Amino acid sequence: MGRSEELRLDPWGATVIHDYEKAMKTFGIKPFYELLDKIENPHSLMKRGVIFGHRDYDTRVLEALKKKEKVALVTGFMPSGKVHFGHKILMDQIIYYQRLGLELFIPIADAEAYAVRKLSRKEVVEYAVTEYVANLIALGLENKKVHIYFQTNYETPYYRLIQMFSRKVTLAELEAIYGRLEPGKIMAALTQAADILHPQLEAFGEYKNIIVPVGIDQDPHIRLVRDLADRFGSELGLERPASTYHRFMTGLDGNKMSSSRPEYAIFLSDPPEIASKKLANAITGGRATAKEQRELGGIPEKCSVYEFYLYHLIKEDASLKAIYDKCRNGEILCGECKAYARELLVKWLRDHQRKLEQAIDKAYKYVDVPEF
Amino acid sequence: MGRSEELRLDPWGATVIHDYEKAMKTFGIKPFYELLDKIENPHSLMKRGVIFGHRDYDTRVLEALKKKEKVALVTGFMPSGKVHFGHKILMDQIIYYQRLGLELFIPIADAEAYAVRKLSRKEVVEYAVTEYVANLIALGLENKKVHIYFQTNYETPYYRLIQMFSRKVTLAELEAIYGRLEPGKIMAALTQAADILHPQLEAFGEYKNIIVPVGIDQDPHIRLVRDLADRFGSELGLERPASTYHRFMTGLDGNKMSSSRPEYAIFLSDPPEIASKKLANAITGGRATAKEQRELGGIPEKCSVYEFYLYHLIKEDASLKAIYDKCRNGEILCGECKAYARELLVKWLRDHQRKLEQAIDKAYKYVDVPEF
Repeated sequence: MGRSEELRLDPWGATVIHDYEKAMKTFGIKPFYELLDKIENPHSLMKRGVIFGHRDYDTRVLEALKKKEKVALVTGFMPSGKVHFGHKILMDQIIYYQRLGLELFIPIADAEAYAVRKLSRKEVVEYAVTEYVANLIALGLENKKVHIYFQTNYETPYYRLIQMFSRKVTLAELEAIYGRLEPGKIMAALTQAADILHPQLEAFGEYKNIIVPVGIDQDPHIRLVRDLADRFGSELGLERPASTYHRFMTGLDGNKMSSSRPEYAIFLSDPPEIASKKLANAITGGRATAKEQRELGGIPEKCSVYEFYLYHLIKEDASLKAIYDKCRNGEILCGECKAYARELLVKWLRDHQRKLEQAIDKAYKYVDVPEF
Repeated sequence: MGRSEELRLDPWGATVIHDYEKAMKTFGIKPFYELLDKIENPHSLMKRGVIFGHRDYDTRVLEALKKKEKVALVTGFMPSGKVHFGHKILMDQIIYYQRLGLELFIPIADAEAYAVRKLSRKEVVEYAVTEYVANLIALGLENKKVHIYFQTNYETPYYRLIQMFSRKVTLAELEAIYGRLEPGKIMAALTQAADILHPQLEAFGEYKNIIVPVGIDQDPHIRLVRDLADRFGSELGLERPASTYHRFMTGLDGNKMSSSRPEYAIFLSDPPEIASKKLANAITGGRATAKEQRELGGIPEKCSVYEFYLYHLIKEDASLKAIYDKCRNGEILCGECKAYARELLVKWLRDHQRKLEQAIDKAYKYVDVPEF
C-alpha cells in the first residue's frame, strides 16, 4: 500500500491507519489531549489517548454545555455481525455522553448493510436488536433521551433531508472521497449525512450542537457532512457537527479487530472460556525469549493484550501504569500477564453476559423494528 | 439529431419522438388500438390514437377488472410550472380511471423538481397545489380513493423501498438509460420506481395490478421499474406494472408543448382572450395560399389547431370527423377554422376557470404539504 493510499481513508474498507498523526494534519483534525484540562470528568478513553483527535469539540460540546445549550450525540452502528470489543469503544462513549445529559440519536445502518454489504434484511434487523441494542443496554444505556432507529424505519423529514442533499453534491465529489460508486453507496453516503444532521431540524428537537464520535476511517463521511451543512446553512439552518476520532481496536493478530476474522476478535457474547483461549493466543509486545524480555522489557504499545487492559479491562489509572511499568522493566513475562488479562476478561464477560441476557428482552422496547 | 439519438428517450429532456412506430418496436410497446374492442367505454384519447401504445394493459387492467381484482393507477406530476393542455391529457386519464373505480396514487415529483431541476421548494409546493391539484379537481377529480402526495412528504415504507432498490441497480445500468448521472438524478430514478411500485406493498393496500399512463418519453423509467419489479419479485412480492403511452401535445409552434416556451403553450389558467390570441398565431396544416388550400385541402395531421379539437375541444366523434373532412377537402380555410377553435377554447377556459377558482381552496384538502 503506497503512501497516498494509506491516507485515503475508506469507511467501507478495513484500512488500518498506521500514521494517525499524518492523517490528522492532512485532514485538519486537532489533537484531543489539548482539551483534557477543560473537561470535568474525561472518559478514560480520552485520558488514555484512545480518543485522539477532534473537530470543534471545544465549541460544540465544552462551551455549549457550559452555556447550558442543548447538545446531541449522533453515532451509528452497521449491524453486520456480532458486537466485539472494537465496537465497545463507541458504546462506552455513548453511555458516557448519556450520563453527561446529551440527547442520543443512534442510527442503525440497515439500509447500508442491505444495499452495500448485501446482507439480508432479516439478519440485519436481528443483529441490530439482539446484538447492538442489547449490548448497549447491558453496558448501561438507559431508555431516556435516546432515539435508536433503523435507517429504513424513521420519520419523514429525515427522508426529505436525504432527498434534498442529493441536489448539492456531485458524483465527482463523492468519487473523490469514496472511489468508484454504485447507487447503494451513494444512497448510504447521503443517508449517513441525514443521520448526522437531522437532529438540527425542528421536527427532531433543533439540536444545533452535535457531536459525532467515530473511528478515524469515518472521517471522509464527516468531511462530506460538514460541507453539506455549509451548503444548506442558509436554506435549512444547518451547522457543522463536531466530531471525535478514536483508534481502532487491534485484533488479536495485530490487525484491526473485525467480525470478518472472528478468531482474532473477542465478541461480547463469546463464552468466557472461548474468549479466554483467544486471548491466550493473542500477539503480544513480548521479546523472542524470556531472557531477552527480562533484560530489555516488553513493548506494551505493540501488545494486543495490553490494549485490552488499556481500552477495557482496567479502570484505575494507577493499576494500569503498574502493569505498563512492569512490562517495560521486564518484571513480568507475557504468560503471567496474559493469565491476569484472561482472568479479568472472564470476570468481565460473565458479569456482562448476565446483564445481556435480560437486555435482549428489553432491547425491543428501545427500537421500532421495520415490517420488511 | 441522429437516428439513434432520436430513439434514446430522455425523460428529463424535451426530446420529440418523430417516429412512434419505431420506438414501439425497439422497446416492445404494443399498439393500443388492438385492445379497443375489449374496452367497454374507451376514453376518446384511446379511440383517437392519442394513447397509442401499452405494455400489459390487457392482463393488468382489462382482465383484472373483469375478474374484479383491485387495480391502482400511478402517475405523477413534475410541478415545474403552470398546467398547460399537454398536462391535461394525463389529467383526463386520471379522472377516467377514477370513474372506472381504480385507486389513484398521484406522486408530486417535488424531490426531483428540487434536486434535478433545481427549483425552490416553496415554488414547487405552491405550483403543485394551486396548479396541478387544483386543475385536477376542476377537471373532475373527486376526493375518494385518491392519494396525492409529495415525494418528500410520504410514509416510511415508501422510503424503505427507495433505499432497498439502490441495492439491485448499478450505475452502469442507469447511465445506459439516462446518460451521465448525478446523485440527484439517481435518487429521482429510484424514487420514481418507488412511486410506481409502492402500492403493491401491504402498507399501501397491496395493489398488484398497477397501470401507469405516461408520455412516451417516460418509457426508460418504466423499463427500469419493470426490471426492479422482477429483481424484487421473490423478496418483496413485486410484480411488473402495466403502462400506456400517449403522444405529446404539440406546441403552437409545432414542437412539444412546454412551460419553458409559454408563448407557444396554452395554460389552463391563461386569460381566455390571451389563450385565444395564442391560438390565432398557431401553426396549422394549411397551404401557402387560399387557392391552393381549396384545391389540395389542408393537412389536419400537421395542424396544432386540429390537435386542440382532437385532444380537448370536441367530444363528439362525428363533429370531429366533419371538421377533418372539411379541412381535407379544402372546404374550410384556416382562418375560419381557427375562429371556431378559439370560440370553443374561450368557452372551455371560462367554464374551467370558474371551477378552478373554487378548486384552489379545496386543493389543500387533497394533499399534505411538507413543512420545509
